[in-house]
Amino acid sequence: MSLSDTAGKRVGHSRVEMTEMVMPNDANPLGTIFGGRVMQLMDIAASIAAYRHARCNVVTLSVDSLEFRRPIRVGHAVVLHAWLNWAGRTSMEVQVEVYSEDLMTGEHARTSTAFFTFVAVGPEGRPQPVPPLLTLSQEEERRFQEAAQRRAERLRRKEREEN
Amino acid sequence: MSLSDTAGKRVGHSRVEMTEMVMPNDANPLGTIFGGRVMQLMDIAASIAAYRHARCNVVTLSVDSLEFRRPIRVGHAVVLHAWLNWAGRTSMEVQVEVYSEDLMTGEHARTSTAFFTFVAVGPEGRPQPVPPLLTLSQEEERRFQEAAQRRAERLRRKEREEN
Amino acid sequence: MSLSDTAGKRVGHSRVEMTEMVMPNDANPLGTIFGGRVMQLMDIAASIAAYRHARCNVVTLSVDSLEFRRPIRVGHAVVLHAWLNWAGRTSMEVQVEVYSEDLMTGEHARTSTAFFTFVAVGPEGRPQPVPPLLTLSQEEERRFQEAAQRRAERLRRKEREEN
Amino acid sequence: MSLSDTAGKRVGHSRVEMTEMVMPNDANPLGTIFGGRVMQLMDIAASIAAYRHARCNVVTLSVDSLEFRRPIRVGHAVVLHAWLNWAGRTSMEVQVEVYSEDLMTGEHARTSTAFFTFVAVGPEGRPQPVPPLLTLSQEEERRFQEAAQRRAERLRRKEREEN
Amino acid sequence: MSLSDTAGKRVGHSRVEMTEMVMPNDANPLGTIFGGRVMQLMDIAASIAAYRHARCNVVTLSVDSLEFRRPIRVGHAVVLHAWLNWAGRTSMEVQVEVYSEDLMTGEHARTSTAFFTFVAVGPEGRPQPVPPLLTLSQEEERRFQEAAQRRAERLRRKEREEN
Amino acid sequence: MSLSDTAGKRVGHSRVEMTEMVMPNDANPLGTIFGGRVMQLMDIAASIAAYRHARCNVVTLSVDSLEFRRPIRVGHAVVLHAWLNWAGRTSMEVQVEVYSEDLMTGEHARTSTAFFTFVAVGPEGRPQPVPPLLTLSQEEERRFQEAAQRRAERLRRKEREEN
Repeated sequence: MSLSDTAGKRVGHSRVEMTEMVMPNDANPLGTIFGGRVMQLMDIAASIAAYRHARCNVVTLSVDSLEFRRPIRVGHAVVLHAWLNWAGRTSMEVQVEVYSEDLMTGEHARTSTAFFTFVAVGPEGRPQPVPPLLTLSQEEERRFQEAAQRRAERLRRKEREEN
Repeated sequence: MSLSDTAGKRVGHSRVEMTEMVMPNDANPLGTIFGGRVMQLMDIAASIAAYRHARCNVVTLSVDSLEFRRPIRVGHAVVLHAWLNWAGRTSMEVQVEVYSEDLMTGEHARTSTAFFTFVAVGPEGRPQPVPPLLTLSQEEERRFQEAAQRRAERLRRKEREEN
Repeated sequence: MSLSDTAGKRVGHSRVEMTEMVMPNDANPLGTIFGGRVMQLMDIAASIAAYRHARCNVVTLSVDSLEFRRPIRVGHAVVLHAWLNWAGRTSMEVQVEVYSEDLMTGEHARTSTAFFTFVAVGPEGRPQPVPPLLTLSQEEERRFQEAAQRRAERLRRKEREEN
Repeated sequence: MSLSDTAGKRVGHSRVEMTEMVMPNDANPLGTIFGGRVMQLMDIAASIAAYRHARCNVVTLSVDSLEFRRPIRVGHAVVLHAWLNWAGRTSMEVQVEVYSEDLMTGEHARTSTAFFTFVAVGPEGRPQPVPPLLTLSQEEERRFQEAAQRRAERLRRKEREEN
Repeated sequence: MSLSDTAGKRVGHSRVEMTEMVMPNDANPLGTIFGGRVMQLMDIAASIAAYRHARCNVVTLSVDSLEFRRPIRVGHAVVLHAWLNWAGRTSMEVQVEVYSEDLMTGEHARTSTAFFTFVAVGPEGRPQPVPPLLTLSQEEERRFQEAAQRRAERLRRKEREEN
Repeated sequence: MSLSDTAGKRVGHSRVEMTEMVMPNDANPLGTIFGGRVMQLMDIAASIAAYRHARCNVVTLSVDSLEFRRPIRVGHAVVLHAWLNWAGRTSMEVQVEVYSEDLMTGEHARTSTAFFTFVAVGPEGRPQPVPPLLTLSQEEERRFQEAAQRRAERLRRKEREEN
């Protein structure tokens, strides 16, 4: 983390937009994209957002529950938006929203939303501090608070599972 | 669903074991597998289990929260086990456990567990009945009950989000 | 082409942003991305822009000369921007700009610019009309004029080659 | 090879089960899997079995003749079983059996059997000793003897070809 | 089979040359190509030769035993040559030779030879006649005779296995 | 560059032939190959030719304008020919011609021609001398002269763009 980053970075700094076309190998015999392929794209988009905030290597720690609300077909586009909701000392929460777009008609819809957490790691693989996240709007502040609650819930769940 | 299936199918009938070697393209610059690639493998293993129970096309509906507890490195093996915990009228819950194995030392560890839900769909894409799931042991019965609770929680969460 | 499209579509309507991470299989033994892999990403980004304008199948007709000004390394991000410069009766020119970003430092630079032409094709594979392109700024108007000149040059070159 | 391995390892120790779904890119224009793709999966399954026995890097030396008895279609599952038949000082024979499964009907059949040989190699790429293979049943003992015969035949064939 | 083909086709008519660069995902942790990846390339080269002779769909029936004599490294080139040795009523034998080339030094060597058999299949998946193979040199005639012997041996082996 | 290379190398020395089958993932929803996938194959074929002439790492600098004259369908073969037209002190021009072949009918046609330029780079990434190109026929000499003109034009264009 460079000196200039200790003051924090804005949400907009690390925002990612990713557009893909669904290929035949991404799809099941019905011709609709595998849920797992969507998760793979989400993880890459979320990782890039986390890299941009931390400017060091990042590793996926967890994904909150997610739904696949509509099928996305071969030949359609998938558009992903990823941004930071929250940053702690060494970990971050990234929100990813997935939209499908029928390229023939322009019809589009949100198909999934997920929350990924990442930890920043140094060259020897140990957790490493990340810049604070600066929230500039009420919307960003609300997301920060909700992410902090999800984090508390994740820690409780983890504790429960380990006992 | 064939006539013989109306009596139900056992958990063991649809159990899946999948073994993969982690390739360079599966990994981030640290040389450890992307979380999203693990999720993609989990979804394929879980899908095959659901196909085996339903014997018709299946579509991923949701994934419960999951953690990546340890990094898995390029050249290591990933072993996945998937089986049905629960089956309702047209939907199923599949549990997937992921193990990493250092092929040089034999050291291995569980790295993730997740619960996927699938819906069985007919040729016109509409939900279609699946056979009942027969639980033969206390362990299988306990998993069935826990899955039913997770399902109730998912429905509550979904309702909350839609209001 | 739907009735509402006959009046034309704005440049912003079909703009595409695509973000990718360079994977080991995208790179030569020096660890830098193959020029051909960059061209493949450019073609997909440009295709999606053309699909969005035409809302029917599109086929790449030609690419103008392009340069690879700087190497892009494994683990870096590639960001592509694509938009329509010009639309004729059945063909379109799409401009694609490629930026590399060192995810560790944030250093980024434009590495390539190219002009792709596409033709819109109907179900039987024949050329099909596309909506006019509405230019709203001086910048967009200048790009439209320059694209028209490139098109004239392409047609002259093609004629020369066929004689 | 660790000290505890000098006493030998059982066949069951290195057994591999691998399940895959046939994807469109695995298949020829008839929609059935390429023989070469099956061989690629067999080699990975067999390699993992050899890694597990040797616990060092292994390199494929040869494959005995093999047949593709039935086509396997896109959307069907491929299940591979691999295990050691024989281990010498630095080389091993692994048997791989391939089964196809129509996920819609449950119909399944053995489609191929093959014998792969591997050599264990150390960090400098030179052959390296592997643990003895312990055969615990008459079946395993019979396979060991047959593999020893195939090995003798391979050496004779190689000698013939080099003269 | 068109009328003009009933007189037979020459060996040269269907000869295939294929050049590839070994990518990181083709290689094991030692940085050398997987045997299974070589087999996949061989099958595609051999298939194209068989398609060119038969001019209908072809399916791999069998591969004779093959050896991997030398490792091929990431960044090296693989050059494959495939040609028909023999054609019967509906089946064909294709020989494939694999050469590795160190692109930095030009050093090259033959690493594998294999014999693939294919059957020509019609639209309903049934075996279909192929043109006779015309041998024009003593070399081609010798290969035809040797292929006929290998075929006889394959049939004997198959008979033995089925009893 | 070895001593024996200072006298120059012939065009034939580095000539490349590459044959591929078009797979479903290479194709758009119309079932015809993406222009970008053709460009990727061209770049690999051209790179191997440049590696063979320079015998050190090479990096793509530019591609001259190119056209896609006919669609190439899934299941068809793509045949690429690449050879050096020109070599300067550290850079080279490679010509690539692409042919499609309908494997069912044998119908084939040239679909694209392009000129790629490469620079040879040493271990530290700096430009490195390549052997002179020896032209042995009038055809090769004509191509050398035309390539020199294209190079002059590229330098003029680059100068123009940078001012």
